[in-house]
Amino acid sequence: MNSLGRIFRIHIFGESHGEVVGVNIDGCPAGLQISPEDFLPDLERRKGGIQKGTTPRKEEDYPFLKTGVFKGRSTGAPICILFENKNTRSEDYDKIRAVPRPGHADFVGHKKFGGYEDYRGGGHFSGRLTVALVAAGVVAKKLLDRALNGNKNSADHKITSTITEIGGQRDIEKGLDRAIEAKDSVGGIIECTVTGLPIGLGEPFFDSVESILSHIVFAIPAVRGIEFGTGFAAARMFGSEHNDAIVNLEGRTRTNHAGGVVGGITNGNELVFRIAIKPTSSTPKEQETLNWENGKIESFSVKGRHDLCIALRVPVILEAVTAIVLADLMLLEQKIPRLIN
Amino acid sequence: MNSLGRIFRIHIFGESHGEVVGVNIDGCPAGLQISPEDFLPDLERRKGGIQKGTTPRKEEDYPFLKTGVFKGRSTGAPICILFENKNTRSEDYDKIRAVPRPGHADFVGHKKFGGYEDYRGGGHFSGRLTVALVAAGVVAKKLLDRALNGNKNSADHKITSTITEIGGQRDIEKGLDRAIEAKDSVGGIIECTVTGLPIGLGEPFFDSVESILSHIVFAIPAVRGIEFGTGFAAARMFGSEHNDAIVNLEGRTRTNHAGGVVGGITNGNELVFRIAIKPTSSTPKEQETLNWENGKIESFSVKGRHDLCIALRVPVILEAVTAIVLADLMLLEQKIPRLIN
Amino acid sequence: MNSLGRIFRIHIFGESHGEVVGVNIDGCPAGLQISPEDFLPDLERRKGGIQKGTTPRKEEDYPFLKTGVFKGRSTGAPICILFENKNTRSEDYDKIRAVPRPGHADFVGHKKFGGYEDYRGGGHFSGRLTVALVAAGVVAKKLLDRALNGNKNSADHKITSTITEIGGQRDIEKGLDRAIEAKDSVGGIIECTVTGLPIGLGEPFFDSVESILSHIVFAIPAVRGIEFGTGFAAARMFGSEHNDAIVNLEGRTRTNHAGGVVGGITNGNELVFRIAIKPTSSTPKEQETLNWENGKIESFSVKGRHDLCIALRVPVILEAVTAIVLADLMLLEQKIPRLIN
Amino acid sequence: MNSLGRIFRIHIFGESHGEVVGVNIDGCPAGLQISPEDFLPDLERRKGGIQKGTTPRKEEDYPFLKTGVFKGRSTGAPICILFENKNTRSEDYDKIRAVPRPGHADFVGHKKFGGYEDYRGGGHFSGRLTVALVAAGVVAKKLLDRALNGNKNSADHKITSTITEIGGQRDIEKGLDRAIEAKDSVGGIIECTVTGLPIGLGEPFFDSVESILSHIVFAIPAVRGIEFGTGFAAARMFGSEHNDAIVNLEGRTRTNHAGGVVGGITNGNELVFRIAIKPTSSTPKEQETLNWENGKIESFSVKGRHDLCIALRVPVILEAVTAIVLADLMLLEQKIPRLIN
Repeated sequence: MNSLGRIFRIHIFGESHGEVVGVNIDGCPAGLQISPEDFLPDLERRKGGIQKGTTPRKEEDYPFLKTGVFKGRSTGAPICILFENKNTRSEDYDKIRAVPRPGHADFVGHKKFGGYEDYRGGGHFSGRLTVALVAAGVVAKKLLDRALNGNKNSADHKITSTITEIGGQRDIEKGLDRAIEAKDSVGGIIECTVTGLPIGLGEPFFDSVESILSHIVFAIPAVRGIEFGTGFAAARMFGSEHNDAIVNLEGRTRTNHAGGVVGGITNGNELVFRIAIKPTSSTPKEQETLNWENGKIESFSVKGRHDLCIALRVPVILEAVTAIVLADLMLLEQKIPRLIN
Repeated sequence: MNSLGRIFRIHIFGESHGEVVGVNIDGCPAGLQISPEDFLPDLERRKGGIQKGTTPRKEEDYPFLKTGVFKGRSTGAPICILFENKNTRSEDYDKIRAVPRPGHADFVGHKKFGGYEDYRGGGHFSGRLTVALVAAGVVAKKLLDRALNGNKNSADHKITSTITEIGGQRDIEKGLDRAIEAKDSVGGIIECTVTGLPIGLGEPFFDSVESILSHIVFAIPAVRGIEFGTGFAAARMFGSEHNDAIVNLEGRTRTNHAGGVVGGITNGNELVFRIAIKPTSSTPKEQETLNWENGKIESFSVKGRHDLCIALRVPVILEAVTAIVLADLMLLEQKIPRLIN
Repeated sequence: MNSLGRIFRIHIFGESHGEVVGVNIDGCPAGLQISPEDFLPDLERRKGGIQKGTTPRKEEDYPFLKTGVFKGRSTGAPICILFENKNTRSEDYDKIRAVPRPGHADFVGHKKFGGYEDYRGGGHFSGRLTVALVAAGVVAKKLLDRALNGNKNSADHKITSTITEIGGQRDIEKGLDRAIEAKDSVGGIIECTVTGLPIGLGEPFFDSVESILSHIVFAIPAVRGIEFGTGFAAARMFGSEHNDAIVNLEGRTRTNHAGGVVGGITNGNELVFRIAIKPTSSTPKEQETLNWENGKIESFSVKGRHDLCIALRVPVILEAVTAIVLADLMLLEQKIPRLIN
Repeated sequence: MNSLGRIFRIHIFGESHGEVVGVNIDGCPAGLQISPEDFLPDLERRKGGIQKGTTPRKEEDYPFLKTGVFKGRSTGAPICILFENKNTRSEDYDKIRAVPRPGHADFVGHKKFGGYEDYRGGGHFSGRLTVALVAAGVVAKKLLDRALNGNKNSADHKITSTITEIGGQRDIEKGLDRAIEAKDSVGGIIECTVTGLPIGLGEPFFDSVESILSHIVFAIPAVRGIEFGTGFAAARMFGSEHNDAIVNLEGRTRTNHAGGVVGGITNGNELVFRIAIKPTSSTPKEQETLNWENGKIESFSVKGRHDLCIALRVPVILEAVTAIVLADLMLLEQKIPRLIN
């Protein structure tokens, strides 16, 4: 399924080199102010072509709000948002049809969909679809902001994604230089924090906050791992070290090793998690792969336009998927109303 | 929801110190041979009281097959399996009602469920419910074995969980000794591998194998992180290093940094992932927490019966949840039939 | 799936002549007062052995609340309710294995489940499972009562099912006499009305109140039709006749041909719908059917214990399924809170 | 939710007088031949402006296949189909904002969505969205045809909808004349039959064929009732009359009072059901309704362009929703493969 969510539900569709990619948002409360301009800052953050190491392909990425918005507000009906694919050079991909790119879904897609898949630029597997996630994230962020920050001047609630490491370097610039120098691609680590959440989101077991967040986080292409709070390091701590002592009736803890989730439920402290992004599969380096027509292993080198470090684009996508999931949990817990005035 | 799955669906219920815990399995194909004895080995593996560091509480853990099995085979109707809770000492918990145990769900459960939650031994949040996951896993494993190994003598398909680290030590015995010596609890790392899977399970984005697996894995209490293939280490590799070169028409790759999943889809190589288990929250060490009746911070020390290292029990649970998810994906891809002869 | 609902979700399981039938209710708000005694009146209404024309088989039908209730209130965790099957005479069914009873699911069950189905007394297809629906209905009714009637003395909200016709007779006694005289079984018509619902439950298209209600209503065995408001008679009216003029700001209409639903949404008027129940398939009359072992058509006559008119038992079941669906819609619209005090 | 289905899932969106209406089809197997021309015959059948009594509004109704189709075949990715709304006269509706049209969703929509709903021409409640259902139905029909008729010359499998009554007349022409004469709108009865279905679709209880079909059928605006086989008339028959004697090993029955479904499962006989369509709410007759601005009851007369008998357009929509549901059940039962060659 290309769908996620229980009340605030999103459905994504489209291909990298098809006419459009898009998202259909169902279950958004009526009355939320929405205009195309709201989307531009996050869409801009996601775009390539600006930072060192990101692809020169530029999409205009204008969000066409086709349905569900009337007189500048959500109507309660599904919100369908389309993005046109304008800047495609499909011929790049036609030539290499029988030569599956290592690290990409070309081979598995071909096997799974029997050769009928749209193979141009990754087709439906493409990172291009993250534009749809970012768009849905913008709507989700607005809902959360409305519910948690209201009309207050100071924003208690905030979702922030930060790159903490690129190419193994905490100095991100250095990590990118290393990639450029090596003529190779690199990965990175991104941390997401969310402040101002109420206690009580999530459920024990299958609908734990970690379950639901990790589910959508792994929908972001190139994610290889996720950890909450101290994460993998927790496995090396003593219990007495790791446990967070509760210090007041709001549930504030002295430390936050749990990363804001206990028993699958938000505990009122900052939600903290980190994800690992693999190096971009499309590296400028020559590689080997199988030609499935002649069964021979061939040398292969990526043409096209690609990011040296896809991780640079991920922070805004990570914020988006986090917002999507939290908006859904907030609706489920009746902390976002069905009607916004 | 206490439910998971699209075709092979499981529903868990029960509390640590209530009458029963159980699982209702819906969507299991008819004709699968199932007897209570099939469950005993995995239930035994999950039990405490055997390994150094696990709790002396012993449940008989006999699986009562109440529905859905007739003349030794699944009927196609829901399979309801109950486990009685016999060995409970609830008075241990009554005294400490207002003193939420650090690292446990006592505080969030109280806030979320308004004081109506069953607070004895963690209630519905308890690790006791993993017995239900293990039971569902046994049924799922049988389905996978039937579909992937058939009547062959050699098992191509196998799910294996291995503890790779306890208390920061690769020598697991040492890790436990360190805990016993320190009178503290420790965590661990567990690796799961699955061989013999077909190419093509999973879907791009929300139903990626990583999304679906991580979703259920975080339903296991105490899990703090998950990584696939090289995982977090991938973020420090070059693309040319990390990419796995395809070397034959079955999709075999020279290396397996991807851990058997590309683009969210199984690629025919071994599925490999690792999880981090935090140290048991119930440590023998004295700790501090808030007494919510008087609002004061108190010293606190766990009585009850608890594992020094809950990670020791997790391997069989991890295999179980992996099998549950894979059985569902196999049914969805029509690689397990609706009727088994 | 043996599951229904989005927030208030029910899962039914069990077989007519197995150990138990039961229901697992997930998503019930915490804090609702629930005791086994609450269930007895509705369970009693459903039972046979009392009214003329109903089966002499008597089950005790005591609801064992196995999980999810603690100190007399729902905890927010799944509520598992079991009913033991005590009064079974399975040998009745063993003899007629190869002779599918006309009107029953014997033949289709055998084909679908490959002979592995529990064939005793209809197995999982049995009307016995409606006891589970009635139990879930009791919980749902309590939620609705709490939300819509609160502490008021007069109950604005009420769900009422009435038999309007038995065996083609409006005088129900006469309809039954006709059946007894003819030594045959008969069917009936049942009308359900719900007062005191808020405006705005349901959604256009797939989640229309009619869609959701009819879905669960056809889960009741023997239902052959459903109509809302004037129903089939509407097809013979003029638009100007059928339209209900709105007469006040609460949405009250002069007539109620719509039966309380417009555009799939409750309109604040009485919800009214009717269902048709076929005559009990197990008639005392001799019938013909195929013996699938010898391929011959045989005369066949039902032994066992059966209702002459299953419709007599349906009103309480119809109320139950209506309550289940409405409780779910009310939770979705945030008109039942997640926590009840 | 504006979504339906378990494997073959449809999501509809759009408003009557917005830019587009559309459908997103997820879970369609890869390899199915699809071209815009495939949709035209059914879209033409649905259109107004041809038959006596249907609205003069004409939409071009061209299906723009935006995603999921590549080189003339489905790719396995979501198929997004858009229809542009060209022929709208929204000013008709602006004037009557505060005057909810009787029989329409104006009042409930306003209450539910707080005044933020798109009120032009019924907005998201409009029958205009049935164009999306018809489009999804075309894809579903193709899947069913491929699976059930294959390359055979004679089509065993066929879905046929027939108007059996208009305005209370079996002679449909007369029924329409009656409406035209009375300057009023009328309703009708439509029967749907499906041949060539395998035994075993559907499940007992919540996923009975009747449950699933009625769910989607009531998504068609103006449907007020549904009955299977003999339906409401069954309530007046004796059991010995109503029961269908099985006469051969393929499950063929002597009569078909059950309408092809027993115990919720298809039995290999013709699937037969009927629906009741209310008279078009927009009748030319003057009516009364409440003006919610001044709280007064006003005389009201519909301008706009409307069908005298919406039932005339329903047959193709009924076939579509039936096909959608059956395709999903067939996929679930693994009788349609995940890949079509």
